[in-house]
Amino acid sequence: MSEPKIIVLSTGSELTSGRSQDTNSSWIANELFGIGFSVSKFVVLPDDPNVLEEEIGNLAKESTKERPVLMVMTGGLGPTEDDYTLEISCKLAGVTSIESPVARQRIEAFYRLRGKNFEEAMQTSIRQISVPETSIILNNKVGIAPGFILKLGENATLSCMPGVPGEMTEMFREELSPWISKTFSAKELHSGFRFIWWMSESLFQKEFISKEESITNGSVVWGVAAKRGYIRVSFQSGDRKLVDSLLEKLDQVYGAKSTPDIFEELPKILIEQKVTVGTAESCTGGLMAKTFTDRAGSSAYFFGGVVSYDNSIKAGLLGVKQETLDVFGAVSRETAKEMAEGALSSLKTDYTISVTGIAGPGGGTAQKKVGLVYFGIAQKGGTTEIHEHYFPFPRASFREYAAHTGMYLLYDLLKRKG
Amino acid sequence: MSEPKIIVLSTGSELTSGRSQDTNSSWIANELFGIGFSVSKFVVLPDDPNVLEEEIGNLAKESTKERPVLMVMTGGLGPTEDDYTLEISCKLAGVTSIESPVARQRIEAFYRLRGKNFEEAMQTSIRQISVPETSIILNNKVGIAPGFILKLGENATLSCMPGVPGEMTEMFREELSPWISKTFSAKELHSGFRFIWWMSESLFQKEFISKEESITNGSVVWGVAAKRGYIRVSFQSGDRKLVDSLLEKLDQVYGAKSTPDIFEELPKILIEQKVTVGTAESCTGGLMAKTFTDRAGSSAYFFGGVVSYDNSIKAGLLGVKQETLDVFGAVSRETAKEMAEGALSSLKTDYTISVTGIAGPGGGTAQKKVGLVYFGIAQKGGTTEIHEHYFPFPRASFREYAAHTGMYLLYDLLKRKG
Repeated sequence: MSEPKIIVLSTGSELTSGRSQDTNSSWIANELFGIGFSVSKFVVLPDDPNVLEEEIGNLAKESTKERPVLMVMTGGLGPTEDDYTLEISCKLAGVTSIESPVARQRIEAFYRLRGKNFEEAMQTSIRQISVPETSIILNNKVGIAPGFILKLGENATLSCMPGVPGEMTEMFREELSPWISKTFSAKELHSGFRFIWWMSESLFQKEFISKEESITNGSVVWGVAAKRGYIRVSFQSGDRKLVDSLLEKLDQVYGAKSTPDIFEELPKILIEQKVTVGTAESCTGGLMAKTFTDRAGSSAYFFGGVVSYDNSIKAGLLGVKQETLDVFGAVSRETAKEMAEGALSSLKTDYTISVTGIAGPGGGTAQKKVGLVYFGIAQKGGTTEIHEHYFPFPRASFREYAAHTGMYLLYDLLKRKG
Repeated sequence: MSEPKIIVLSTGSELTSGRSQDTNSSWIANELFGIGFSVSKFVVLPDDPNVLEEEIGNLAKESTKERPVLMVMTGGLGPTEDDYTLEISCKLAGVTSIESPVARQRIEAFYRLRGKNFEEAMQTSIRQISVPETSIILNNKVGIAPGFILKLGENATLSCMPGVPGEMTEMFREELSPWISKTFSAKELHSGFRFIWWMSESLFQKEFISKEESITNGSVVWGVAAKRGYIRVSFQSGDRKLVDSLLEKLDQVYGAKSTPDIFEELPKILIEQKVTVGTAESCTGGLMAKTFTDRAGSSAYFFGGVVSYDNSIKAGLLGVKQETLDVFGAVSRETAKEMAEGALSSLKTDYTISVTGIAGPGGGTAQKKVGLVYFGIAQKGGTTEIHEHYFPFPRASFREYAAHTGMYLLYDLLKRKG
């Protein structure tokens, strides 16, 4: 079938009321891009059966023979009374619902494990294992509720998955994504990306993008996402050579500030070199250690850290001299150096990263403004490097800038050492 | 004017491609709820002028005299070539654009500060300070680009704000929100909420919601959002007494597990009691300290922490006995106790919270499964409490459950001490 108009739908009154954030839609869009499809729009709807029926019905009508509509929907398949996805799907397709045998086996095993009899289960549990009778079932290997793929007329297809991210991501990758690839023809696209550190989107566009003919003439599509501490620049094209030459050019122009995904790469290097890391944090308050340990398996290289929020901890656990704190202040090159070196001796790791800065909104002075931050990178048997940065952003952003930059600085040091 | 159908729109190809997350829409929905309006849907569109024109045009057509449409849109007002919001707005309203005098003053001052002359500015900067000629201007007190409110026909209004969160939130609160309140009539709603700890949405619905007549008969609207470690239950009604009596009932039924927002309340209690806190973390890897220090001013009560990911740090900085680690293991009541007490003596705070558990996906055994976690709460001159929990969830969820639960346990202890 030809390239579809893909609409990513999610339902949940907790989403449209702003109590929760829809993270499924962007995850799905990203995955679809990876298999060569692009998304036309996201629509987020409340758990209101009338609204769902009207909106999904109207979206189905946007389909044509040339441009079939594929809706990828999450949410509303749970056991509570405000879960309407199954009911509305059946109504729109004019079919009844039937039980999924695989889901029934799963839920029975689930009840047995808990010493209960499924026959006594709530009606809601039974509804949870049902799907529209004419649909293709998407098995749920993580939770209970199955998903499904349902035709809504000649050129419109509705696929539904649970809203729980752990269930949805597994179901999408194992079941829905292969079906989409098999059913619709995708564009053959090549893509690549770089992180460019401490760069703004608009400056990047002015000094790089606006001068690239392959971009201005539309041969390559570019994208940029501002992260905290870096921008993620991506290129897509049918022509792999054009993408590769732009990536090479980024590396030439931005040098060490152009990197791959360091959150992927740094762990690989640490494991390969069999070295260990520790942290000494002030303004980031544990966020740098948390970022290091986000990944499973990080205990292979991350040993631990000290969060020295109060100066008494800087002096006590990290051995920063009281004189240094008095003369230069907690936010200074000197304190950053002693924090990193003190951590090296108390944590006994090969490398340590320290960070001390003014996260704000209070605490700034004329000399040391909110946003000023120092990093120290200490290494066993080597000299300590100090880096100064200025991130004049709101508190939460500042802390992410600082935690990401700390990881970048270690990555960069290890790269330079080769 | 009568109650509008509100559609929250955002534009950005970085959103529909999944490279970035739309956080503006839920923030706006939350604010609108606060002033008595509810949102009908979110729509997220790519930076494609044809798509924007068609979709916004269609959304405007959903308006009727009885139910006027108000679109609250963010994004596409920046300086780059893929910013189409101004152009499409003008086209749909059939008007041209004019410069905002206030925005011009701002950008001229901005250029002067940098020693540049605005007359030499890029064409894109000039476009950035323009608005549709018949619109109401929304001033930008943070960045450059102004927003605007524009009529698109008899019963449809399009309001546009920049996508940068810091600019948008200020503009919404200072300019757009007062205009909406003045122009449309909102429902007078009362609302309240509680956190219920370690509770599932479906069990809560079965054992509480389904038995409440004021909810089943529609007098009170309820909502629930599953957070990590707790659910946030909210009630809304035109009748304040109904809301209050449900909140009281939650407190009766769930006792100490029914709390206000502890992330707001715990800091208040700590400041009031003039006590200090420290952390000793293993599986959460710094997330608990990070959560404590998310708030500005947290240095008043949070002194610091030790991230003892590797056992060598548990023994070294926290003084956990090697024998304890050998006999009981790193994930045990005994280790949690020694971690908390060791932190109390090394951090010299009034309270410490320790956490040690198996975040997974690896590291579980038949006796100690992935998800098992122990907390220790030590207090100066008091006995140490140990709490066991089991959070069999994916790694990132597990860590948030654990960090939130650690804060709950301290809140609960302080409440019990009175």
